[in-house]
Amino acid sequence: MKVIVAGNRGFCPGVKNAINMAEKILAREEEVYGLGPIIHNKDEVERLSKAGLKTVDSVEQVNSGTVLIRSHGAAPEQILRLRKKGLNIVDATCVLVKRVQQIARQLEEDGYTMVIMGDENHPEVQAVVGCCRNVIVLADNADLDRLPVDGKLGIVSQTTEDPGHFTEMLCEIIRRGFNELKVINTLCKEAIKRQESAVQVCKKVDIMFVLGGLESANTRRLAELCKKYNSQTFHLQNWSECDRRSLLGKTTSGVTAGASTPEWIIDEFVQNLRDFDSSGG
Amino acid sequence: MKVIVAGNRGFCPGVKNAINMAEKILAREEEVYGLGPIIHNKDEVERLSKAGLKTVDSVEQVNSGTVLIRSHGAAPEQILRLRKKGLNIVDATCVLVKRVQQIARQLEEDGYTMVIMGDENHPEVQAVVGCCRNVIVLADNADLDRLPVDGKLGIVSQTTEDPGHFTEMLCEIIRRGFNELKVINTLCKEAIKRQESAVQVCKKVDIMFVLGGLESANTRRLAELCKKYNSQTFHLQNWSECDRRSLLGKTTSGVTAGASTPEWIIDEFVQNLRDFDSSGG
Repeated sequence: MKVIVAGNRGFCPGVKNAINMAEKILAREEEVYGLGPIIHNKDEVERLSKAGLKTVDSVEQVNSGTVLIRSHGAAPEQILRLRKKGLNIVDATCVLVKRVQQIARQLEEDGYTMVIMGDENHPEVQAVVGCCRNVIVLADNADLDRLPVDGKLGIVSQTTEDPGHFTEMLCEIIRRGFNELKVINTLCKEAIKRQESAVQVCKKVDIMFVLGGLESANTRRLAELCKKYNSQTFHLQNWSECDRRSLLGKTTSGVTAGASTPEWIIDEFVQNLRDFDSSGG
Repeated sequence: MKVIVAGNRGFCPGVKNAINMAEKILAREEEVYGLGPIIHNKDEVERLSKAGLKTVDSVEQVNSGTVLIRSHGAAPEQILRLRKKGLNIVDATCVLVKRVQQIARQLEEDGYTMVIMGDENHPEVQAVVGCCRNVIVLADNADLDRLPVDGKLGIVSQTTEDPGHFTEMLCEIIRRGFNELKVINTLCKEAIKRQESAVQVCKKVDIMFVLGGLESANTRRLAELCKKYNSQTFHLQNWSECDRRSLLGKTTSGVTAGASTPEWIIDEFVQNLRDFDSSGG
């Protein structure tokens, strides 16, 4: 069948950099640990695991060797504990994620009540929370009551937050009343380009595939967005999850992928789609 | 007829202070000038004119004596020219208006593109424009195209701007996209209280009067707001403008007044309303 692949898709520079760093350390060192899964993609984590990367959940599980800080970053307090243990640290935190941490720290120092829009369970948000004395995490309207009335608010967002949701939440904050607002747009422009590119593709196709880890926030957002324009949108991890029956009778399919989806998974998926005879013949 | 007078109405502290200062100088000095009408109320301007206050439009018209800077403020460049002329200056700029000027100057110094929401012809806005190298004045949505895309914007508002309009304009700015926003809420809380008080009254009455100069921005806003809740709302300058026929058949009337309306005008109006027999008998 005919396949249209989104121009902006897959690995962002931050993830690409983290994977490259992991491969380089694995090539020269014996004992390499990743603090948390290096990316939200189990196939890629598995591939690197076979190459020797040991994924751990906490600092307590590591006592020797080199520790890789993934692109989502880690709380300063975790890094401090790794240092105290005398471990070798390789920091692959995405520059944009690091920027959010720096901005949050600075805004709090300047007397702002810190607010981050995003998912409190996402490691990127947790790292920002770990940087400051106090951060209010806003996921949706229900969290707005936690904001001080007439406050002096410093606002940032998770880099992969949905731009439309970010805008509407800001408007809600403004409607509640405030004394001062300082908002720094920390949205990742790569993520926005990926979203725009996905929307363009999904409007032209009979069926749309968004490839990426089920845990990956940016992939999930990508899928939600495509679903708005094309109800035949499926969020899959790889070709093995594709239900061939969904392809029958379709002429054109579209493919995009989240920031943590490696190109080899996309290639394999696209090749299989192209080879598929959707006429059912 | 029965009259309900709004609890928060008339002179705000800034205007009260300017009038007091004018009266004090007039009591001790011969030659006193006001740079622009001291307030947007021709009755009060006339009263002070009789007491000796000479209103001028420009610095060029004054060559001796004392010059009073009204509560709306004046551009620093005008004050400089007055100083160069060796004139005695008495500054009655409202503290809140002065604060907007200081904030605007500081934000521009900190690298923000300055934006003020308000009326470009209002002296308060003109004074802020005079404080900075470059200020974008936003009156409504049509002005939004003058904003830089993805800019670093410092935003304030005219102190008497309508809070709802301020909020909606901010949301529009956010929807257009930005890199950084620093918004300082410079709305006058006295004006907001006056508006809330007026709305409460106008909902309870058959006919509503908003007293104040036709040039007065805050009085016009007050009248617009009351009109939303009570179509029988009239913006008048004083009792002489009241069409008695509009009162016939009405049982209860409401009265409020803008920040530049002196209490003696309100008192006279209320007394006449109370004495009026609206049954037509």
